[in-house]
Amino acid sequence: MSTSAVPVASGLPPSLESARSIVWPLLEERVRALQPDLAQVCLYHLGLTDGGGGTSKLVRAGLMMAAAAGLDLPPREVGTEATAVELLHNSTLLHDDIIDDDRTRRGQPSAWSAFGVPLAVLAGDAMQAAGLRMALDSGDRQARLAADAISLVLAGQTDELMLSEDPAASVAQFEQVATRKTSALLECCLTAPALRADATDAALAALRSAGHHLGIAWQAANDLEDIWGDPAVTGKPARGDLKRRNLTLPVLTTLAADGPAGTRLRQLWRSADTTATHLDEMAGLIEQIGGRQAAQDLSRHHLDQALNYVSHAGLTAAGTDELRTLFHLIVHRTT
Amino acid sequence: MSTSAVPVASGLPPSLESARSIVWPLLEERVRALQPDLAQVCLYHLGLTDGGGGTSKLVRAGLMMAAAAGLDLPPREVGTEATAVELLHNSTLLHDDIIDDDRTRRGQPSAWSAFGVPLAVLAGDAMQAAGLRMALDSGDRQARLAADAISLVLAGQTDELMLSEDPAASVAQFEQVATRKTSALLECCLTAPALRADATDAALAALRSAGHHLGIAWQAANDLEDIWGDPAVTGKPARGDLKRRNLTLPVLTTLAADGPAGTRLRQLWRSADTTATHLDEMAGLIEQIGGRQAAQDLSRHHLDQALNYVSHAGLTAAGTDELRTLFHLIVHRTT
Repeated sequence: MSTSAVPVASGLPPSLESARSIVWPLLEERVRALQPDLAQVCLYHLGLTDGGGGTSKLVRAGLMMAAAAGLDLPPREVGTEATAVELLHNSTLLHDDIIDDDRTRRGQPSAWSAFGVPLAVLAGDAMQAAGLRMALDSGDRQARLAADAISLVLAGQTDELMLSEDPAASVAQFEQVATRKTSALLECCLTAPALRADATDAALAALRSAGHHLGIAWQAANDLEDIWGDPAVTGKPARGDLKRRNLTLPVLTTLAADGPAGTRLRQLWRSADTTATHLDEMAGLIEQIGGRQAAQDLSRHHLDQALNYVSHAGLTAAGTDELRTLFHLIVHRTT
Repeated sequence: MSTSAVPVASGLPPSLESARSIVWPLLEERVRALQPDLAQVCLYHLGLTDGGGGTSKLVRAGLMMAAAAGLDLPPREVGTEATAVELLHNSTLLHDDIIDDDRTRRGQPSAWSAFGVPLAVLAGDAMQAAGLRMALDSGDRQARLAADAISLVLAGQTDELMLSEDPAASVAQFEQVATRKTSALLECCLTAPALRADATDAALAALRSAGHHLGIAWQAANDLEDIWGDPAVTGKPARGDLKRRNLTLPVLTTLAADGPAGTRLRQLWRSADTTATHLDEMAGLIEQIGGRQAAQDLSRHHLDQALNYVSHAGLTAAGTDELRTLFHLIVHRTT
């Protein structure tokens, strides 16, 4: 299927339709080849058990397919590296739920709460190894790019873990965490097809910058979603980060505020209370002090930057449009 | 330093001396380049904090250096892949302690019990990614070999986890688990230098078989060590596997025994008691029924096979001798 094909029933943009038709079968085949118990955990995590067709939109694979199309490469040509990136990304999700003690993912019990920590640790490890092995199948440079990206993601997750113990964290620190935790793999998705197409250094740099800003915009939107999102859309319980007192962007822009609202917010923050009433009051204060607006502004700013960079990457007009559509969809997810 | 250099103060075989002088600095340099909190966990795990010179004997790197020397390659030429293999191996150790709920490793608190599960999960992930990235630096084929090996190790760890819930497990199943969990990386260590030296298919096959049998012999010896080893030597609390009712080789060869000893053993096994008296009685029964002897015999049989294969791999006489010395040292560790 070409990215220019009209999406059929799903209403998805063509690149996500391509990701669905090309990457899901590769992903499922690769995961089914794992040790059977590991395969079971991974299939469950991906939503491929009980006749499920997969619960992820494969956004990263979609970005790769869109970038490929914009470089006049058939999407199928980046199928292997797109699958590799999805394996790597999902390896971090499997472990992230253990790290964050998250019991729910995509509306169902997370893998570790369904299968136990030992199997979930091993399944994440196996997915990382399979992802890097698969990246190798698409070539040396692709494998280096993927390995470097996943190393940055892990560094960013660690930065974030440490940040959550540092109440003096600033917006700059948030951006630094997001740059590694979220942007690194998106940059890889956008630049891998460019490497394959022997694009110019200028095009590579523009795509890298687009991925960089997209990641920060997305992370800011995620942070907003935790507090004001609809659990039916996010697939996660409301206000998990707030409950765990993770220093998300709306929080860290308000926690040091002057005045009675700031004082009250700090008081609530330091208490161990996680009831809905308590969290409601916190959310109200964060909004009142301006944390919601600040995060929205930051997300918008970086989305604009990402859109701007991708428009100057020398891609085909159709490819540029498709990537711009995806960027909007990713940052303002509606399904 | 060449492997033919006389070891200085340590009394180590030349290949382990080479591993020490070549691989420790590379390993430390690579780990120090990680995100600082991850670096701290990894340095701690490796025994490189507080002026420590590293607590591992780097057996896998040593095997690689010995095989290299036997193929007339300078040990330094396999330094990068040897470091990669040690990173990969240690990534599995970091996670294995979480999986097994082991609080002690090499005589000190395990990484997760010192730093918490989140950081230990991330540190293991980062070591795996760094290991595969470093394997890439030594070439495409080396990276494939390492990625395939680590995937097998993870499969074997999972097999073992499942085995521990299957009281009908047989010796054949034990061998199958060890083949993946323990042998896979040893095969990689012995064959990687042969790939680099463009050795014949026959030599590659002989080295692979040597690694295969060495892994089974080693795993059997490890299983014996858990029950009858000296914690001062193993660095782990005595009888951890027995406490957790893990189906090690001496256990699975005796658990189905006829007669009153077998009946009593099954009774003790099914009880939740983990006191020293209880474990002593179990160990006594296992020995009485013949589990100790059976495991010793199996370990010896596979060691003999490994020694035989390595003697027919077409290596230099000095290289063959060195590998035979290492094989003995690994299976019958004395320090």
